[in-house]
Amino acid sequence: MNSCIIRYILGYILKLEGAFLFLPCIVAVIYRETAGFSYLFVAVVCLVLGLFMTRKKPKNTVFYLKEGCVATALSWILMSVFGALPFCLTGEIPFFIDALFETVSGFTTTGSSILSDIEALSHCSLFWRSFTHWIGGMGILVFLLAIIPLSGGSHMNLMRAESPGPSVGKLVPKLRQTARLLYLIYVGMTIVQIILLLAGNMPLFDSLTITFGTAGTGGFAIKNDSMINYSPYLQWVTTVFMILFGVNFNAYYFLLFRRIGKALRMEEVRCYIIIIVAATAIIAVNTYNTALGAAGTIRHAAFQVASIITTTGYATTDFNLWPEASKTVLVFLMFIGACAGSTGGGVKVSRLVVLVKSIFRELRSYLHPNIVRKVKLDGKPVDSGTISAIHVYFFTLIILFALSLFAVSFDGHDFITNFTAVATTINNVGPGLGMVGPVENFGFFSPFSKIILTFDMLAGRLELFPLLLLFHPSIWRDMSTRRLKDSRKAEKKLAAH
Amino acid sequence: MNSCIIRYILGYILKLEGAFLFLPCIVAVIYRETAGFSYLFVAVVCLVLGLFMTRKKPKNTVFYLKEGCVATALSWILMSVFGALPFCLTGEIPFFIDALFETVSGFTTTGSSILSDIEALSHCSLFWRSFTHWIGGMGILVFLLAIIPLSGGSHMNLMRAESPGPSVGKLVPKLRQTARLLYLIYVGMTIVQIILLLAGNMPLFDSLTITFGTAGTGGFAIKNDSMINYSPYLQWVTTVFMILFGVNFNAYYFLLFRRIGKALRMEEVRCYIIIIVAATAIIAVNTYNTALGAAGTIRHAAFQVASIITTTGYATTDFNLWPEASKTVLVFLMFIGACAGSTGGGVKVSRLVVLVKSIFRELRSYLHPNIVRKVKLDGKPVDSGTISAIHVYFFTLIILFALSLFAVSFDGHDFITNFTAVATTINNVGPGLGMVGPVENFGFFSPFSKIILTFDMLAGRLELFPLLLLFHPSIWRDMSTRRLKDSRKAEKKLAAH
Repeated sequence: MNSCIIRYILGYILKLEGAFLFLPCIVAVIYRETAGFSYLFVAVVCLVLGLFMTRKKPKNTVFYLKEGCVATALSWILMSVFGALPFCLTGEIPFFIDALFETVSGFTTTGSSILSDIEALSHCSLFWRSFTHWIGGMGILVFLLAIIPLSGGSHMNLMRAESPGPSVGKLVPKLRQTARLLYLIYVGMTIVQIILLLAGNMPLFDSLTITFGTAGTGGFAIKNDSMINYSPYLQWVTTVFMILFGVNFNAYYFLLFRRIGKALRMEEVRCYIIIIVAATAIIAVNTYNTALGAAGTIRHAAFQVASIITTTGYATTDFNLWPEASKTVLVFLMFIGACAGSTGGGVKVSRLVVLVKSIFRELRSYLHPNIVRKVKLDGKPVDSGTISAIHVYFFTLIILFALSLFAVSFDGHDFITNFTAVATTINNVGPGLGMVGPVENFGFFSPFSKIILTFDMLAGRLELFPLLLLFHPSIWRDMSTRRLKDSRKAEKKLAAH
Repeated sequence: MNSCIIRYILGYILKLEGAFLFLPCIVAVIYRETAGFSYLFVAVVCLVLGLFMTRKKPKNTVFYLKEGCVATALSWILMSVFGALPFCLTGEIPFFIDALFETVSGFTTTGSSILSDIEALSHCSLFWRSFTHWIGGMGILVFLLAIIPLSGGSHMNLMRAESPGPSVGKLVPKLRQTARLLYLIYVGMTIVQIILLLAGNMPLFDSLTITFGTAGTGGFAIKNDSMINYSPYLQWVTTVFMILFGVNFNAYYFLLFRRIGKALRMEEVRCYIIIIVAATAIIAVNTYNTALGAAGTIRHAAFQVASIITTTGYATTDFNLWPEASKTVLVFLMFIGACAGSTGGGVKVSRLVVLVKSIFRELRSYLHPNIVRKVKLDGKPVDSGTISAIHVYFFTLIILFALSLFAVSFDGHDFITNFTAVATTINNVGPGLGMVGPVENFGFFSPFSKIILTFDMLAGRLELFPLLLLFHPSIWRDMSTRRLKDSRKAEKKLAAH
């Protein structure tokens, strides 16, 4: 294990976080809030620590999958611990476990909150809360790759460990350029949404925070009732952008380079759109309300569907009061999630497409055992290693879900609350049903349950294995040594997920 | 598709069912119940139809996996339809959908009931209801193999399509002998349980019906409050026998031939016992009740754990009133299920062992990508085709579960009711939680939901694919032709499950 390079990366992460923490300080200056001093203090601590850790450049900057996973998992934990400190220092979230829950929920773009009164927060804290979504959405290590020069070709492993979806492709031959391109699209779409929200007379502060939450598919709102009181225009803009940020970013790359045909042929994106339209139709019929009329009913249905499938988590209505069938659809959408290569969470549409196709292949093999058929995605055969890895991923998710559900059940809350609390955190959605509905919060859980749910948010965002790997004893045995004998075969592993 | 042989087998099934239907007639004579005439009538109809269908022996008696699956699925449907008729004719269950639900629940050894007052049934109906468990437990086609001479070696496919678990092995070189041996063990254990129950002063009728329900891991009781009012001795005997009937029957074969070491080394059985002990311990601590004392608490915990994991479904207490953590454990046990090669349902312990091991293999592959490790069961490597088939099986179960949950949710009942209603039927358990708790029933569901749940019971018992195959259009296209060109490769398919 090349622990030097891991220390180096963690140091860079702290420097970055220190820089980011100056933004809420600026907000505090504008609104003349003393809470800003807490952010300033933590920013300085991060910078000093970060400079100290990156003082000595490691000789060997090549590293493999194992290092990639460990570096990613530790980066996210470190980032969350330091990101939580200002909430404690300002006294707005006095308990560290609560602050950590809130920060992890931010970085992992979950959007579940332990706060009962969001509006009581200072502007700088509200800004930081939403900004963590924006950072976490695209992934901080991808950001690192985009701006700093690291070593040769092997830091693909970093990107693979952090990026969501079964496979990570380079859009352009050079990885740094790919990372830059992704961030360019990300920033561009963020700016467009801010402008469109401002055009709908949304205050600037609201536009920024709501857009950060949309772009990262996070879901922290700055009002206690989420987005219920915004105008239909603002709700529709948010709906459209939630859906757009849930699309595989490769599609935008294709569009950018005028390969429109290739973008339209992407099977995952087509399934994603079909699921959204179908779910919206079912829910609109099921929740039809004469008081709202067709337009209002469809607006709420589309907003909630977009919010849950993209794992954002904003709400324009208390869907906890919806009929059972609509709520059941929402629970499924939590697990389906957005496209791979987007900022959304969940299982991801492309994984589900492959899984469902493997069922049909199985059925056909009963009928025509002589004909070996391959599962195809976008016309290309998916190799059996990838299919098997996706199946293992799915089963691991279910097992982690079940264990978390069991752990949380000791709090004694009802089944729907526990079930959706775990589902919404492990899939990085935000709100659930029952006692964790869209106008409720997670504050009532015991500290033990909060730790479990915090772990689930991280595991969900990092797609399980990078985080689970930390529990393997050999990782910590290896940490002291600096062996680098693992072959390039390792690189192929994460690509299969 | 060799449709002649399928017709022939279906005819045999009807003859068998006709013969079985004479048993409730005998019960009716003893208790002087006129309901017996309904059973007599259906028995005669079955025999006549069966004789007609088996009049012409098919020339080609060899058949493959596809025929095995179709014959099995159609047999179970036919058996259930005719088995339901007496309930309608006696007027005890006036609606056919209800009667079908009850009969499928019987044959599939589920034990979910639509009856609110079980004690109002005639003795012959109570007997038939419980006897369907006993028939369904070991599988009627296995029974067919045990008693009638069919063609050469290729009817292994029939057994593979019907027997639960990821793989079916012949215990002895000849399949008919294997089938006979299985039924011998089954009958032997059934007799022992009846004697032990009689020794505890249980009336003969109760002993017979309760034993049928235990042996088949069914769960139809003859009292409205299931087994709450039986003595602790009778409850303990039932607990032990539920666990015994959930063990892989290969273990008994090994014991019978004094290969005790081999029986004790069976990984699946050891995991099964560990899960039972662990779940009982957790629930006993969680539900500890000073009024019951340690002995009473453990008795109820052990009974309910054994009842749910073996997918029997008897109850000695209303576990719907238990704390949330204990109820959550029960929900997991529903999915875990008993051992492969037992009469129980669920995912099966051996499948879960392989699935969990595949997670660890995945984690290890991140650490040591050069070392290819095989998943092993009982010390033998499991080939990748089997592992992949188990993963597909698991995902198919989850998808069928989700679709059923969605369909049932339109009835508008709460989430826990819908969730456990589908879980308990698809895993062939019996009772659920909420409105389908152990002292409740399934009568309140809409006819549509009852059809869905009936389908789930059949799908669960036949391990999904044989039943799902019926929905493939090519099966019905092929039915009219008599092609037999599919190669022996087909045989290897089901063995992989």
